Formats: sequence, structure tokens, C-alpha cells
Amino acid sequence: MSILAADIGGTKIALGRVDEAGALAGGVTLRDTPAREGGAAVLAALVAGIKELLDGGVQAIGVASAGIIDPESGAVAGATSSISEWVGTPLAATLRQAFGRPVSVVGDGIAFALGEGHFGAAQGANSAVVLAAGTGIGGGYLIHGRPLLGERGGAGHFGHLPSPGAAGLTCPCGATGHLEAVASGPGLLAWYRSHGGGDAHSAREVAQRAETDLLARRAVTEAGVALGAAAAGLANALDPEVVVVTGGLTGAGRLWREAVESGYQQGLMRAMHGLQLVISDPADWLSLRGAAAAAKEALSS
Amino acid sequence: MSILAADIGGTKIALGRVDEAGALAGGVTLRDTPAREGGAAVLAALVAGIKELLDGGVQAIGVASAGIIDPESGAVAGATSSISEWVGTPLAATLRQAFGRPVSVVGDGIAFALGEGHFGAAQGANSAVVLAAGTGIGGGYLIHGRPLLGERGGAGHFGHLPSPGAAGLTCPCGATGHLEAVASGPGLLAWYRSHGGGDAHSAREVAQRAETDLLARRAVTEAGVALGAAAAGLANALDPEVVVVTGGLTGAGRLWREAVESGYQQGLMRAMHGLQLVISDPADWLSLRGAAAAAKEALSS
Repeated sequence: MSILAADIGGTKIALGRVDEAGALAGGVTLRDTPAREGGAAVLAALVAGIKELLDGGVQAIGVASAGIIDPESGAVAGATSSISEWVGTPLAATLRQAFGRPVSVVGDGIAFALGEGHFGAAQGANSAVVLAAGTGIGGGYLIHGRPLLGERGGAGHFGHLPSPGAAGLTCPCGATGHLEAVASGPGLLAWYRSHGGGDAHSAREVAQRAETDLLARRAVTEAGVALGAAAAGLANALDPEVVVVTGGLTGAGRLWREAVESGYQQGLMRAMHGLQLVISDPADWLSLRGAAAAAKEALSS
Repeated sequence: MSILAADIGGTKIALGRVDEAGALAGGVTLRDTPAREGGAAVLAALVAGIKELLDGGVQAIGVASAGIIDPESGAVAGATSSISEWVGTPLAATLRQAFGRPVSVVGDGIAFALGEGHFGAAQGANSAVVLAAGTGIGGGYLIHGRPLLGERGGAGHFGHLPSPGAAGLTCPCGATGHLEAVASGPGLLAWYRSHGGGDAHSAREVAQRAETDLLARRAVTEAGVALGAAAAGLANALDPEVVVVTGGLTGAGRLWREAVESGYQQGLMRAMHGLQLVISDPADWLSLRGAAAAAKEALSS
């Protein structure tokens, strides 16, 4: 028996079957997210991806999605511009009807937090702040392993905290000055381009150049320090047992990781010194496994 | 029967007797905090203030204090520089021994949050973010009326989130770039002075000039917008039912309140629009009444 898990990001949809132990038995399948084509196209790509992997051993479907997911209906209640016309997409209802199985949908930040809580750096922690950085920046705050959802499923949108590095920059959420505008993958790429690094096409590309290209190094440092400072701010504000940075950007290399750690240490208030920051390994697919954990928990409750 | 409540701030110690209904029956007594003379002097001033108000009808003592209060011992576990040598002060133990009554000590941010939860703008809310701005900036996050304390009593230190307006400024906590460095009373005053307004002695004085003095108005605006942006960031991150700004600075006048509201509206992500910000009235003494509420709750538990 397994859970079919999917993670809908602004760039890729990742899919995989998660076994009883929380492992991705058959590896991970990636599809492009047709983010510019709108919610219906993304939903169609998701359905096609699930269909391909589904078999009789799949007990339930667990989905992680960008945006704010209504905890009652499993529909998209709010979203940034990273996927067009995403708000209102009836994720849970559509998948339930298409596949006749129990479906659980959580925000992707919450999925990362659950993944870290069940299988990663926050295992067994009394409380944890998990900050997930990729195409967007989100996360979750776990108390006794359970994510705080907030009043409308919006808790964990840590990318929408003010950030000194983002002064004057427009955030995908519509506001200005938010962390996501400087420290997400697109934020990092935009910084590099706007400072003269015109020919890069992805944050990954900028990160790969950072060892030899000074401008790329500065972009990676700006993004990393801003993320680390926000992690420290959340540590000061919530006083958790552990602080975790996770998400696709954790694959951005040594210089980025050093910048995150440096921003964190600079921002931590003296009374919190000793509170550890853990930077995860992107190869662990913790959002997929977290989405599966949410689906499994829903089955047994 | 009543609770004797005290609130130890960086500038003043406020004391009063709080009746069964949570009202300050006999008004409030203010003493200067001998903040520069160190923890022992502040503790002596507190003991003297309590002695003056104590009578046979006082059931328990409830104290709110700047700094991080250890939830087990009621001692000061961490503090910024706003009171010298405050860390280690055995608040609860000293008062218990001096007065032979039950004593409860909470951080002043938590006290404000409890005050707003029991008697103020967060009454009956499922969850609330309370941001308290005065000599320092703190607050509390209430879930079903109970404050989140964090792992070492440090939760609610919202003044130590990154703030664009504080880039390069040293915070009383020792780090740089934190909200408290720009949006607290001393932060507002320091901004005014460093931009040429040399002759002001308090944030209140700057605020009083703001209607006619352009530099004072800019200082008030900087501080207010930064605070409002942080309130919005916390709304985005925690998705509470209500967001409250409270504390001594709420007496800083119309222009400050407009700046807070403006910073909040600019920073709120689209999906959170409609989430209300309430700016309290400083005349309500909600930290004192919150400290009393904590002491009353400790009596009945």
C-alpha cells in the first residue's frame, strides 16, 4: 500500500509513490508546470501525472500546492502570481472525482514542514520553524509536530515578511518589500539580471556561476543573507526548538548556504544564541513526503 | 479581593490594583525605572512600589517585565540593553519571599497580549497577533486566548524581525537591522536626532512636534510605517483572526497611527485583505491588566 504524492510548484510538478515508511519507492517524476496557461491547464497536467502513476496499491492521494489551501474544501483560496488564475481551483474535489480515492491537499510550505517534522531535521522537536525557499518562499510552524494552519489556511507564508534586501521590490503577492522578492529563485535571478548579469535563465545557473562570477556571487549572497535574517527573525519571534531551511534553493551550493548561515547568526538575538539552524538536503523530497504524511494522517483520523 | 499588578518597562514601572472584573480600581502609580543602575536597583524600586500599594485584600502579585522570562522560575532569562544587568534577576523568587503571596511573572509583550485577549481588541478571537510598541517592541501570539511562550519563554519578541527601515542600525538586542531599532520610542527619537533634530528628549516630544515640524513628521512616519509593515508580515506569516498594535507608542498621535495603518495595508498580501488591524488606546493599561490576568489564572490552575 502507498500514497500517491504530488507537489505543484511554480516551475515543476513532482510526483511519486510514498510507501508505509515514508520513502519514495519508485523515484520521482517531474513535469513542467504550465504556470502561465492558468489553473485549468495546471490541474490537467496534475491529473495526467497522477493517472500515469496510479495503480491498485494506491490508498490515497496527497497533494502539496503553491498558494493558500482552504483547510475545509481543499481548494486554492489564495495565491501569488507564480501560477496564473490559480485562486479558486477545486483541487481536492477534482481529484476525488477523477480517481475515487481519499484526497488531501495542503499548502506546499506546510508540506515541507510536515516532511521535515516526519522525516527530516524537525523530527521529534517540540516546536519548529521550517522555511522553504524555491520558486516561492513559504514554510510552516510546527507545534508538537502539527502545522499551524491559521484562520484561513494561510499560516506559514514566511516569504511575505518585510526584508531589508527587498526594499522597493515588488513581490509576486502584489505588495512590496517582501522577502520572497529578493530571496526566492526568481528573486535571486532578478537581482542578478538587474545588476547587469543579463544572460542567465535560472537561479540554478546563477548559483553555478557564483564560484567564479563576482556578480553571481553577490546575487547568491544577497538572497542567502536575506533568507537567513528572516529565519533569525522567526526564531526571535517564535522561539522554536529548531529552525530549518528547506526547499529547492538548498541545492544552490556552498556559497548560498554560507550566506544563509551568516544572515541567521547576524540576526539572532543574543538570548537565542545556541538555537540551531539546519539547512536541508533537496534530494530528500520532503515536500512530496510531507504531502503523503498529511494524506496518511487524514486516512487514520 | 484584588491582584497587585506591576509592569517594569525600560523607562517606567507602572503599578496598580486590579479588581475581579479586571479594572484598575485605584488608578495607576508610576515610578521611574532606574534602568542604568542595573537589575538590583530596578528590583528594589519594584519592591518599594509594591509595598506601598499592598494591603490585606491583595491575593496575588502579577508582574510584567521587559526581557525573556523563564516560564518555570519566573527569573529574567534574557534581555536587551534597555535595562542594565537585567539577565538573571530572580523576579518571582524575590517577590514571593518579600511578600509571602503567590507571584506570577510574564514578559511584557505577553502581558500586553493577555490584556488585549482578556479586555481589549483580541477578546473572543480564535487567534491574535498582538504587537506592543514602547521603549522596546514585543508582543504575543494568542491561540484560543493563550499566549505562545516558545521553548524558553522567548516567543513574541516581534521587535527582532528584520525591518527595511532599520538597515544598518544596531538593535538593543545586539544584532543589526531589527524593527525595534527604528520603530520603538528610542528608535524614533534616534532617527530624529541623527537627521538633525538635535534638541528632542523623548519620542513623545518628537510626536508632539509632528504636526508642524517636517523632520519630526518624517521620524514618526518612518517608525509607524515600519511597525505597520511588520504587523502585516506577521499577519501573512501567522494568519490570525485579528492583528492588534498596542503599547505606549499608541499615544503618539494621529500621524503615527496613520503611518502604522499605511504600512500595514501596503504589506498585507492580497489573500489576507480584509484582515483587520486594530490600534489600541494606551489609556487602557492593558499590560498591567494582562499581568493581573496571568496571576489570576495561575491562582485557579
